[in-house]
Amino acid sequence: MSTLLNRSCPAPLKHSTIQLAHGGGGRLMRQLIEEVFLEPPPALAWTERHDSAVVPLGTERLALTTDSYVVTPRFFPGGDIGKLAVYGTVNDLVMSGARPLYLSAGFILEEGLAMEELRRVVASMREAARECGVRLVTGDTKVVDRGKADGLFINTSGAGHVPEGRSVHPRRVRPGDAVLVSGDVGQHGIAVLSVREGLAFETPVQSDCSPLTPLVEALFSAGVDVHALRDTTRGGLASALNELALDGGVSVLLEETSVPVNEAVSGACELLGLDPLYVACEGRMVAFVPEPQAEVALAALRGHPLGVAAARIGRVTEGPAGRVSLRTRLGGHRLLDLLSGEQLPRIC
Amino acid sequence: MSTLLNRSCPAPLKHSTIQLAHGGGGRLMRQLIEEVFLEPPPALAWTERHDSAVVPLGTERLALTTDSYVVTPRFFPGGDIGKLAVYGTVNDLVMSGARPLYLSAGFILEEGLAMEELRRVVASMREAARECGVRLVTGDTKVVDRGKADGLFINTSGAGHVPEGRSVHPRRVRPGDAVLVSGDVGQHGIAVLSVREGLAFETPVQSDCSPLTPLVEALFSAGVDVHALRDTTRGGLASALNELALDGGVSVLLEETSVPVNEAVSGACELLGLDPLYVACEGRMVAFVPEPQAEVALAALRGHPLGVAAARIGRVTEGPAGRVSLRTRLGGHRLLDLLSGEQLPRIC
Repeated sequence: MSTLLNRSCPAPLKHSTIQLAHGGGGRLMRQLIEEVFLEPPPALAWTERHDSAVVPLGTERLALTTDSYVVTPRFFPGGDIGKLAVYGTVNDLVMSGARPLYLSAGFILEEGLAMEELRRVVASMREAARECGVRLVTGDTKVVDRGKADGLFINTSGAGHVPEGRSVHPRRVRPGDAVLVSGDVGQHGIAVLSVREGLAFETPVQSDCSPLTPLVEALFSAGVDVHALRDTTRGGLASALNELALDGGVSVLLEETSVPVNEAVSGACELLGLDPLYVACEGRMVAFVPEPQAEVALAALRGHPLGVAAARIGRVTEGPAGRVSLRTRLGGHRLLDLLSGEQLPRIC
Repeated sequence: MSTLLNRSCPAPLKHSTIQLAHGGGGRLMRQLIEEVFLEPPPALAWTERHDSAVVPLGTERLALTTDSYVVTPRFFPGGDIGKLAVYGTVNDLVMSGARPLYLSAGFILEEGLAMEELRRVVASMREAARECGVRLVTGDTKVVDRGKADGLFINTSGAGHVPEGRSVHPRRVRPGDAVLVSGDVGQHGIAVLSVREGLAFETPVQSDCSPLTPLVEALFSAGVDVHALRDTTRGGLASALNELALDGGVSVLLEETSVPVNEAVSGACELLGLDPLYVACEGRMVAFVPEPQAEVALAALRGHPLGVAAARIGRVTEGPAGRVSLRTRLGGHRLLDLLSGEQLPRIC
């Protein structure tokens, strides 16, 4: 059995019911997807574990993606569920090299939700869509009886256009590629957690939620041959790298000292016993680029306000598929595995 | 104030919280959409009340649509939530003249849902997608804690390609157009209700849930210049006609004796005090076609097993926008208004 199989089919943790951790972006979620959705005959034709599907539409290339948002609380420092629902889906589109164009919005409302809250969320979506240059073109509203949902869930699906000549995909990752991150990690998860748990930190942590479109366009404008991109959402930086390494059939070596984590986040993580490398962001991405273009790419990212803290954090190596390791501050090595359980439920 | 405005902005029923009826496909849902989502600046750019948005993608025409499914119970005679989630979204695409191609699937799962049930639903989606010739290309799974959802909600969004030369839209409806329905109405709603309420009818009612693609393709193959289409889902035939009449700026006159309703459904409706014209279908549509092509269109529909009970049920008239009336069995006239409240919650 190859290492790839080993990693992609972890020792079956048999669950006869859905666990919270099945939504956590870690090993259990991957297992759920493989066993229930990808079980042959290819359940749903999710042929590839990518943020968006890129498919033909006549003579054009269409990118499609979907995400449901169930974050709690719905308003948090630096954002809200409406913003998240727009940025998150836009970001999934741009991670495939697409230019985001259209969004759909599906609302599941619980009977009794305050109309004023719905208005605020919709206003926030409108503003975020304007900022991202996308149009919300179609929608749906369902209402369920009191106690059968949690106020408000939003699904946004997105459609984008992949310009000719772009090819961004995990399978393009090559040993030697430089690994960049577009900013410091972990702010979003900590911001949500702080409100949820009523924690007050010395320096309040704001969610990093933001659109990644300008950063990706900056890379292409600088002529960078971007190999792969992934936004570091559920499961954080470590999970995004695990997935890319697995799907690309490579290993990744990170330098701990190079990974940007702001002080407030690292303080909060220490306090809470969390590893910032696994804490979700909603406006950060990793980019795999050819080594000779690493400096140009970094400069392109840093040239935009959302990328000022961009950093080169590691490189792709020839090791076994899906192995992500970290050279620690003290020079040791630590394996960054997919999480089995759920670190922070309902952060998006 | 024009009649159009009168109808589209009914006397404001001020609600400060979401009511079940806001999801019912009637007047209150329309009001919610207008006041919250379409409030200027055009909240979300839902520019048109159509089943799908048709938008440009490069040189092609892309149809996009989204629907969330919250039906309870999840399994009912003739279908289940998985089938519904595929057919429903496929049908919204074909109602705009598009050929359905791709679906996304977003699952919101409640902690504790039986894995076996999820498997059954996914298997059903796979089978329905195969039947419809569409590919489920991208997906998302979220898990919420126990008590914060009702087992399983599914959002499916769809993308389709609108072939050159097709133009299906409420604004193409003209006085004189013939109004056709593709089969008998109200089976789906009664089938769901019968399980939910534990009702046993002499003849069990099966859901009519099915894909409408072959019927629409049959119309085009027969050379019919289809003006407008709408599937008769939430709010049933009467609501679909109200919306088309309103958006098309015309009146519609129905002949009660021509509307096909099967005996089991009309018996159940009598027993339950429901009007079959307002009961949801999930595999029926109305088609507005030019009068001279009505017979050709009817023959095309009847040539397919899903359209054997197709009937010509009325015609478009010059009256005020959005006025739908029924010539009753006894020759009287009855106004078929948009429902204010909710007849059957959570039937899709």
